[in-house]
Amino acid sequence: MLVEFGQTRVMCTASVTEGVPPWRRDSGLGWLTAEYAMLPAATHTRSGRESVKGKVGGRTQEISRLIGRSLRACIDLAALGENTIALDCDVLQADGGTRTAAITGAYVALSDAVTYLAAAGKLADPQPISCMIAAVSVGVVDGRVRLDLPYEEDSRAEVDMNVVATDTGTLVEIQGTGEGATFPRSTLDKLLDSALAGCEQLFAVQKEALALPYPGVLPEPAAKK
Amino acid sequence: MLVEFGQTRVMCTASVTEGVPPWRRDSGLGWLTAEYAMLPAATHTRSGRESVKGKVGGRTQEISRLIGRSLRACIDLAALGENTIALDCDVLQADGGTRTAAITGAYVALSDAVTYLAAAGKLADPQPISCMIAAVSVGVVDGRVRLDLPYEEDSRAEVDMNVVATDTGTLVEIQGTGEGATFPRSTLDKLLDSALAGCEQLFAVQKEALALPYPGVLPEPAAKK
Amino acid sequence: MLVEFGQTRVMCTASVTEGVPPWRRDSGLGWLTAEYAMLPAATHTRSGRESVKGKVGGRTQEISRLIGRSLRACIDLAALGENTIALDCDVLQADGGTRTAAITGAYVALSDAVTYLAAAGKLADPQPISCMIAAVSVGVVDGRVRLDLPYEEDSRAEVDMNVVATDTGTLVEIQGTGEGATFPRSTLDKLLDSALAGCEQLFAVQKEALALPYPGVLPEPAAKK
Amino acid sequence: MLVEFGQTRVMCTASVTEGVPPWRRDSGLGWLTAEYAMLPAATHTRSGRESVKGKVGGRTQEISRLIGRSLRACIDLAALGENTIALDCDVLQADGGTRTAAITGAYVALSDAVTYLAAAGKLADPQPISCMIAAVSVGVVDGRVRLDLPYEEDSRAEVDMNVVATDTGTLVEIQGTGEGATFPRSTLDKLLDSALAGCEQLFAVQKEALALPYPGVLPEPAAKK
Amino acid sequence: MLVEFGQTRVMCTASVTEGVPPWRRDSGLGWLTAEYAMLPAATHTRSGRESVKGKVGGRTQEISRLIGRSLRACIDLAALGENTIALDCDVLQADGGTRTAAITGAYVALSDAVTYLAAAGKLADPQPISCMIAAVSVGVVDGRVRLDLPYEEDSRAEVDMNVVATDTGTLVEIQGTGEGATFPRSTLDKLLDSALAGCEQLFAVQKEALALPYPGVLPEPAAKK
Amino acid sequence: MLVEFGQTRVMCTASVTEGVPPWRRDSGLGWLTAEYAMLPAATHTRSGRESVKGKVGGRTQEISRLIGRSLRACIDLAALGENTIALDCDVLQADGGTRTAAITGAYVALSDAVTYLAAAGKLADPQPISCMIAAVSVGVVDGRVRLDLPYEEDSRAEVDMNVVATDTGTLVEIQGTGEGATFPRSTLDKLLDSALAGCEQLFAVQKEALALPYPGVLPEPAAKK
Repeated sequence: MLVEFGQTRVMCTASVTEGVPPWRRDSGLGWLTAEYAMLPAATHTRSGRESVKGKVGGRTQEISRLIGRSLRACIDLAALGENTIALDCDVLQADGGTRTAAITGAYVALSDAVTYLAAAGKLADPQPISCMIAAVSVGVVDGRVRLDLPYEEDSRAEVDMNVVATDTGTLVEIQGTGEGATFPRSTLDKLLDSALAGCEQLFAVQKEALALPYPGVLPEPAAKK
Repeated sequence: MLVEFGQTRVMCTASVTEGVPPWRRDSGLGWLTAEYAMLPAATHTRSGRESVKGKVGGRTQEISRLIGRSLRACIDLAALGENTIALDCDVLQADGGTRTAAITGAYVALSDAVTYLAAAGKLADPQPISCMIAAVSVGVVDGRVRLDLPYEEDSRAEVDMNVVATDTGTLVEIQGTGEGATFPRSTLDKLLDSALAGCEQLFAVQKEALALPYPGVLPEPAAKK
Repeated sequence: MLVEFGQTRVMCTASVTEGVPPWRRDSGLGWLTAEYAMLPAATHTRSGRESVKGKVGGRTQEISRLIGRSLRACIDLAALGENTIALDCDVLQADGGTRTAAITGAYVALSDAVTYLAAAGKLADPQPISCMIAAVSVGVVDGRVRLDLPYEEDSRAEVDMNVVATDTGTLVEIQGTGEGATFPRSTLDKLLDSALAGCEQLFAVQKEALALPYPGVLPEPAAKK
Repeated sequence: MLVEFGQTRVMCTASVTEGVPPWRRDSGLGWLTAEYAMLPAATHTRSGRESVKGKVGGRTQEISRLIGRSLRACIDLAALGENTIALDCDVLQADGGTRTAAITGAYVALSDAVTYLAAAGKLADPQPISCMIAAVSVGVVDGRVRLDLPYEEDSRAEVDMNVVATDTGTLVEIQGTGEGATFPRSTLDKLLDSALAGCEQLFAVQKEALALPYPGVLPEPAAKK
Repeated sequence: MLVEFGQTRVMCTASVTEGVPPWRRDSGLGWLTAEYAMLPAATHTRSGRESVKGKVGGRTQEISRLIGRSLRACIDLAALGENTIALDCDVLQADGGTRTAAITGAYVALSDAVTYLAAAGKLADPQPISCMIAAVSVGVVDGRVRLDLPYEEDSRAEVDMNVVATDTGTLVEIQGTGEGATFPRSTLDKLLDSALAGCEQLFAVQKEALALPYPGVLPEPAAKK
Repeated sequence: MLVEFGQTRVMCTASVTEGVPPWRRDSGLGWLTAEYAMLPAATHTRSGRESVKGKVGGRTQEISRLIGRSLRACIDLAALGENTIALDCDVLQADGGTRTAAITGAYVALSDAVTYLAAAGKLADPQPISCMIAAVSVGVVDGRVRLDLPYEEDSRAEVDMNVVATDTGTLVEIQGTGEGATFPRSTLDKLLDSALAGCEQLFAVQKEALALPYPGVLPEPAAKK
């Protein structure tokens, strides 16, 4: 499925493959992994292809790990048996917030895949997903808290934070960084308020997308207008 | 721009970067290069990501080289000055004929880029493209010549041939292979007849696409219906 | 210098090299980078050497990037001229909290290096460090908030959080993750309280270490006894 | 065995190893693979060693794949059982036409290996080779069709074509490329005429070589004098 | 354990892992392997990390192979069963003679590991070590034979030799090289006299270290004072 | 040129390239480097190609370094100006002693190259080679000292030694290793006697080869009959 938030477009796909990584064999448990990548022409200035460079960069690996960790928080891997769900998040066009768009879209792809597997009778537990997962980026730009920054604002943000949350109001992951500046704890609180409100909107959008016949294009949340 | 032929969808982009490869420096000439890649989920069974494997496979390199060579046949590189046009062809969904779809789409992306550069006054010669380029795959399936095979037919073709041609009726590249069988010269002639007719249809489609505001989606040729 | 927190021992070194990365050239600014690595025998079960595997793993890159980003928050890179400070953090023995120990020790190594450079008259601004930096790990184990978890507790923590803070009370980076569980915002607040208190103790320890002749061994904070 | 065509010298060897690649296991079928490489000093200007660069270049992989595909066209892999024949083609000295010389020589090495295996009673079918395989390069230089171009002519050819054919008059593979120029279909026909005549001469030479005690040096065809 | 010779400090560790390399499986024999590495900041000028470069340099591999070969000379691998002892020698600080310090320290680490395995009843033969192993570097500096050269002398030595010997007076390995000069056989004899005397001192030091509770720091030999 | 000792055949080539490695720039001195490699089919059992594996093995690097070091002992690099001589030693067929055959053959290739450069007036000093270099392998097999062991004997040698010497009677490099056994100093002396006698024979053979028109095949020494 294709996620679009503003000018950011990410293609999110869930594939099921037999077997699990070696360290997990004979556990009876499944696994969920994610790979994030950016097409060379997704950014304003073309970036080199990592396959050609022969190695996956630190940023790419960090985001891939974040996506996998975030989505593993909502699924009971025992229900899969020893099978692996691979989530591929490929950024076709980038304008800030690619990692949070990827998580939000990956949840929909995962949910669709699980529905398909359940219908095919391949799951031990037909409802292995315990909650919805969405993510937003928030930041401080020119001293003000802003939700879901486009690239132009993101690149001059004083604080940048990504929040992954569930529709039950709990947190899955929070990563906040001062960019060339440090920030007081009160700012952290304001950023979190904004992020959790943003996630609420995304859960509504995800529900709409999941109601569509697969594969659909995720409609933009009202918040972006 | 996005090219769609049947179930095959390829995203083709042209980016201009300053400078040329080391072996071409101080020649006063530009360069055109191409990179082809397939998203992991483009095929029915997920294929591993080449960036993760740490090397670009032989098939990928072979196709990238073919695309670059084909498109260099239509452009006067002296007009670019010492700049490089990078053509990225990323297969989002694969159902046979990805390399020929990539070449056909790359021509449109290249043509759009050249129009943009010319308008910006960045070309020594405002019309550096000497002809149109398109490519088709043809094959022999169950003893009959077929144009533009989908994957299911391609995988059991007895002969498989890719033809890159110009709108002036000449050939740029021809690659024909017997798959587990050899073929007489008369078959080669029939395949060429079919391929050149297919290219004619594609030139019409490309002209339509280039008439659209950039970036457009290449309409499917009538031949596919 | 060698940092020891409980059974965790990290060797932190600052080296100054001429020049900056290509993307930063001709900016007049210096750069600070960090590399984290773990010796094969640092963990209970020997882990393979990344140089032998031929690539740096995702976790290693993620931590290296975190250390670099954290320490860049306290230094005015303009004072260095176009030179690079490389911080090497090599884990000789690991028992939880290696990344936070690395940051805390790297600050001392950086501070010593800056003192040396200033004494040698090589800095445009003799006091380019604006604040102290320290980091702690905090977590929830068996439902209770705990500071600076050893490996045995860390591996069964329900929530795991790393906090990088300054001695002026502000935050540099915060990364919190639910491990197989999500967590309410109230838990985040308690974890932060504990983390900031822990950092206070570390600033005292760092001051002691910096008062010693270089290179010294960082004494353990009272909190660990 | 050592193949010499003019100043081009290629060492072709066939080795039999137990087992087949993973994707072919439990099929009961054997496999045939080929690796082409050029010694650093084979060209006028020394070229870097691919093992030192750490990756096999696109041209090398493309030619290796071509050789393997071409030779698989003449052998019944079922006769081998689950064993692999590896054809190594190492260019000791290069003066144009190395890929076609490699195919022509590899046929002789393969044929010798099959004779040896059959004599040792290791083949299910004692005559698994169904036809002879040879390859030539043809081109258009200064407007004229030429067979088997040496490097000096090859580098200024307007059209370059490689043809792999069987001694029964059929085609295995045809690859034709316009070099900085496109070419009409009539030229393709003339090139094919010349190529097929060239292959006839090579089949005679291969028969002579196979009549010699192994390993022999392939005598040059009369055509080269 | 940590070995210190003058300003050279090497951390030597022995780890036992289950299994042996593929080529040794089903032999009933164990294996011993060694990996040598230098921390980036061990040398006066920081050297790049091999994991970041993506490959292990020739010097590193050569020394790793030497250490493994030297220590395999003293141990009966049949006593281990199909298990592997990995010796890790990481240079924390380098001032000449790192490879010989590594071998000398690795012997102590190996001996400790064997004592531990024997006490745990995991060895077929409780005393699989047949002799002690130590190594020294000797050289000719300004025309005079010198034992255990520090870096400053080593870098201007005319002849450089490493000798690995046993406490029974026999040789395990000898490597002598003229550095920008060749040397007569009489010099070789003088270098050997000096080296064997140096090893005698090291055996005494190793015995002291092995008498200490593990892990100890190897005391410096009197010879270094 | 092609060196043949018994069943061992090594192709040795010297190429001159402009420029020197970065660390040697602006020194006014030239450089000499060597690369050793073995063709896959050179050994009885086919060995994998290092370019395909993506890295150069430890043994290959060790031998390449040895060849380069040995040949640098005989040449005045100042005479070359800032140019590099690359010696390529490719083993076509291996039957023991490939590294010493490579050194002995590389001397002839180097000498020919220097003669060519001097004749072309490209050397500051027309006779930059100060002595001849040759190398032999010696070993102890079944308790007896043997010169130039073929593979069958080499693989069961108790001691294995390579000696590189000059025609003035001095040593360049000596590497002796006990294989699963240690050896007394008296054995070292006997091995050296045998090695130096063997080198004398090789110098005679090299002189013959250098008297032939380039490129010649090095005749076998009488000692091998």
